[in-house]
Amino acid sequence: MTTDEVGPVIVERIFNSEPLLYKEDPEKYSKEFIPKINKYREEIKCNIPPEAVLSPGKVDSDLIIPEDFEEIAFKDGMKVAAKTKILTEKELEIVNLTAVEIVDAIAKGDLSAVETITAFIKQAAIALQITNCAMQFFPEEALARARELDEYYKKTGKTVGPMHGLPMSLKEHYGFKGKTTNAGFASMIDHFTADDALTTAIFRKAGAVFYIRTTQPQSLMHLDSSNNITGRCRNPHNTALSPGGSTSGEGALIALNGSPLGTGSDIGGSIRAPAAFCHIWGFKPTNKRVSLMGAFASYRDMSNDTVLCSVGPLANSADDLALYMKTFLDAEPWLKDNYITRAPWRSDIDLPLSSLKIGIVFDDGIVKPSPPVLRALKLAKESLEKAGVGKCIEWVPYQTAKGLEICNVAYNVDGNFNHRSRYEESGEPLRPLSEHHMRFGCGDKGVSTQELLQLIHDRDEYRQQFADVMNETDIDFVLTPAYFAPAAIPDKIKYWGYTALYNILDLPGVSFPTGLVTDPSLDAKDTQYVPRNPLEEYEYPMYDETVFAGSPVGLTLHGRRHYDEETLAATKLIQEIIFKAAQDA
Amino acid sequence: MTTDEVGPVIVERIFNSEPLLYKEDPEKYSKEFIPKINKYREEIKCNIPPEAVLSPGKVDSDLIIPEDFEEIAFKDGMKVAAKTKILTEKELEIVNLTAVEIVDAIAKGDLSAVETITAFIKQAAIALQITNCAMQFFPEEALARARELDEYYKKTGKTVGPMHGLPMSLKEHYGFKGKTTNAGFASMIDHFTADDALTTAIFRKAGAVFYIRTTQPQSLMHLDSSNNITGRCRNPHNTALSPGGSTSGEGALIALNGSPLGTGSDIGGSIRAPAAFCHIWGFKPTNKRVSLMGAFASYRDMSNDTVLCSVGPLANSADDLALYMKTFLDAEPWLKDNYITRAPWRSDIDLPLSSLKIGIVFDDGIVKPSPPVLRALKLAKESLEKAGVGKCIEWVPYQTAKGLEICNVAYNVDGNFNHRSRYEESGEPLRPLSEHHMRFGCGDKGVSTQELLQLIHDRDEYRQQFADVMNETDIDFVLTPAYFAPAAIPDKIKYWGYTALYNILDLPGVSFPTGLVTDPSLDAKDTQYVPRNPLEEYEYPMYDETVFAGSPVGLTLHGRRHYDEETLAATKLIQEIIFKAAQDA
Repeated sequence: MTTDEVGPVIVERIFNSEPLLYKEDPEKYSKEFIPKINKYREEIKCNIPPEAVLSPGKVDSDLIIPEDFEEIAFKDGMKVAAKTKILTEKELEIVNLTAVEIVDAIAKGDLSAVETITAFIKQAAIALQITNCAMQFFPEEALARARELDEYYKKTGKTVGPMHGLPMSLKEHYGFKGKTTNAGFASMIDHFTADDALTTAIFRKAGAVFYIRTTQPQSLMHLDSSNNITGRCRNPHNTALSPGGSTSGEGALIALNGSPLGTGSDIGGSIRAPAAFCHIWGFKPTNKRVSLMGAFASYRDMSNDTVLCSVGPLANSADDLALYMKTFLDAEPWLKDNYITRAPWRSDIDLPLSSLKIGIVFDDGIVKPSPPVLRALKLAKESLEKAGVGKCIEWVPYQTAKGLEICNVAYNVDGNFNHRSRYEESGEPLRPLSEHHMRFGCGDKGVSTQELLQLIHDRDEYRQQFADVMNETDIDFVLTPAYFAPAAIPDKIKYWGYTALYNILDLPGVSFPTGLVTDPSLDAKDTQYVPRNPLEEYEYPMYDETVFAGSPVGLTLHGRRHYDEETLAATKLIQEIIFKAAQDA
Repeated sequence: MTTDEVGPVIVERIFNSEPLLYKEDPEKYSKEFIPKINKYREEIKCNIPPEAVLSPGKVDSDLIIPEDFEEIAFKDGMKVAAKTKILTEKELEIVNLTAVEIVDAIAKGDLSAVETITAFIKQAAIALQITNCAMQFFPEEALARARELDEYYKKTGKTVGPMHGLPMSLKEHYGFKGKTTNAGFASMIDHFTADDALTTAIFRKAGAVFYIRTTQPQSLMHLDSSNNITGRCRNPHNTALSPGGSTSGEGALIALNGSPLGTGSDIGGSIRAPAAFCHIWGFKPTNKRVSLMGAFASYRDMSNDTVLCSVGPLANSADDLALYMKTFLDAEPWLKDNYITRAPWRSDIDLPLSSLKIGIVFDDGIVKPSPPVLRALKLAKESLEKAGVGKCIEWVPYQTAKGLEICNVAYNVDGNFNHRSRYEESGEPLRPLSEHHMRFGCGDKGVSTQELLQLIHDRDEYRQQFADVMNETDIDFVLTPAYFAPAAIPDKIKYWGYTALYNILDLPGVSFPTGLVTDPSLDAKDTQYVPRNPLEEYEYPMYDETVFAGSPVGLTLHGRRHYDEETLAATKLIQEIIFKAAQDA
């Protein structure tokens, strides 16, 4: 399939406007669910500590806190904590530590679990008021747990595990002992989960302190963030933009230092897109490396193996991602979750810069990257070459459109049966991008068994061809944008190609902050550009330097399948070089 | 599902006699295919070295070689080489070496590749005349390759790789450069394969010398061995019995020392059953550990991920299985085959006998093992306990019938579309057990997409429940029969439960020789036994001590998913103990 064929094959379906099988039920929804939703939202608000409540319009020196973060493009999130003096100096220092620094300090006795979680509770409260990133917030429970941990440490001189006292955030769709888990569906607002998801259980045992569960879009299937329960989550760098999705809340929260480390999941870009849009680190490992046991989504009593979701961490540093992986895998989770691979975390990666062979994707042939993203890619190439990277070439992914077509059909092989039945239970209105997702692939029609078996064959063949091209062109890593622009316009992002391609390929990927920021004087929109297909025609004009001014650019490095450790190690190496070059530029 | 429900759920389908959709085409088959088949058979015969041709009726001391190995239960296969003097004393010594001993001797210069392959060519010729285990035999090519290898060694003092000069056999369905590959389908008799399968290519590069491709049943889907191209393969210990299948030829050949090491594949017991029936070693690793790239079967342009085939070795010792795995995985095959897991072979397994926790399956609740198999299990339990194994308890697999039902449906999710189309191309007659396989699960009806997604879910849930029971009962290994009897009556074996259960579970398993031999005085048929279900009623009476007299008993040890190295190491440990006990008894 060539780029020319993108139109007929993918676009026709995406822009199809035939009615969907799903019918909203406004009466049922407003009668049975709106009251529950209002109560749910109220509870989040009530748990904000009074000293951390932001007064709209409050003026503190030069900082103006707007009435409505969505209407006003508020870009000063990081300044709020300092300028409002909600956090003490010491607390500000704490929330600026990485997860590794925190666990080290607590293990040495330099910090207590209580003072650590106290600081993050305040900072998370600020973040959730600015970005609406929380789906549940429970500071009291967290403080009680932190006190327990401090007592244990005081009594024994030991930590309970490698995450002793570490504040940790969780995307909401992981089961949490004694709480409800809705996965972005109104129908699941009362869905009580008796047990922790396996990831949650392992980190809890390792000493993590949970205090916030973060938001996600309706159905989890947007690269954006809007659901009917908590509404829209906003980009921490510019509240008029999207934080990306579906691990939206983690992206917003971690970027504002409201959490040092969180759990996300990615079936089309849901870790890598929000990490890039929010300018933090996010790691999608190879499928089946981290457990989905106890995570909820649309499917129940059915499993779609054709395109799989990867669970992984988001954080503010590469080392924190490794801490997450090592802690999880050291627990030998494969003995509990039969589904995942047995593959202990390898910490002994020796990967000199001169050994890295990278292909850089300046354009995937479907939607051209916007000027600031192109500038980041160029900066990456120049700085890496200068620093002595082994190889760094311009590289075009093998038959992107074919890969994406397979991926899109794979999402909906069940003809949306599972999504539809989750929606029907509440009759909730579809968010605009939920409708978009249900039009992917063959939409409500789904595929027959034979078509599904063909699809699996095509997928494996495509993966093999992609790997062959990597072998032939002699590259081990693919550096790509996470999206054509630094972030997305709310409710608009329809093109998943820069991330979803690597889901159908099952390649690990790490999004990272480049440090490069959209500069209207350097990154003017290319108004002369003629889109090559209807998808590009839709997506490309959404970039505008005035709207995106100040937006930082994240990129993603993908590695070979099962080369998770190498991919993370390589990203750490190249990020330092690119970030420094961005600061020096 | 309880044992009581085995009848309605599985048996009804298996004993269903409604006509299949496939219709034979005798005219097309006899006109277009019989001549090709005759030519194909003739070629195998022509390649037998004249000095290795067995004269029917030939009498050499006390050895009588029968006119027809199928009619007469010939049990003296191992004596033929010595008594007919087809092999010299030195050659007899060579064919009694293990693969590890051979590569060591060649690497040291104590043996040449040519003398080694010469011995194995003769012994293989004997084996193929007795058991009909060959599908292709090409001694001349092998000798040429051995000469090359000897020259290289002479010139450089080095080996080309860890298998330098090792004679190696291959199940036919692996693609072989420049030859045809039929996978047991008459329609594929002309199917030319330009390239080696990946396993073949890696072993070739490592220095293996190929000389024989071994037989398999029609469609590969029997635990027996009968196809329309080369006919029936016979059990090396008793030519009136089945060698098991589908890696039938390897089982027969290796048991007669006609090859030290071979490649097989297993989707329902196809390595473990022939290894057990032929009293050799066979290893089915966890799925995706060894590559299927370049192997052929019924499916093309479609892939059935629901139950997967594992590739693995057959040999006469545990160390030879490890040599195979290490050589293959040291080549980093995952960089070539994107489908397999990246998991290097771990040679550093430290597994003291006292750490082994084993559950022994004396009865899976569906078909009770026959007396000699029960005797072997009892011997195993007693000898292991005496030797100080960590734990050794009687153990019943969790809901066997449920697991098998999932597995049977999984085989035929396509409603036999792929098998049928392979058959239709030739119109060949179905062998009795091909018909049996096509009645598995939902047979020609197949499943809908939603049923398939439910099946995948049920499979994963069953795997998890099985793993949970292993955790709860605190065992790491399951010691089982490979079949209810020591071997099978030709064309009769319908019960795959003792092996196929571990395919749907994806647990690694090693079949091994116990050294215990069916003794009519100890192993009389239990004529009073009342079968619990129609499957048992069909299968159980097939054991008869007079028919099976002298048949050696193999057993299988299964380990946890992804614990391939531990499973092999544990089997090596326990086999030594059990084998010694059998000799001493």
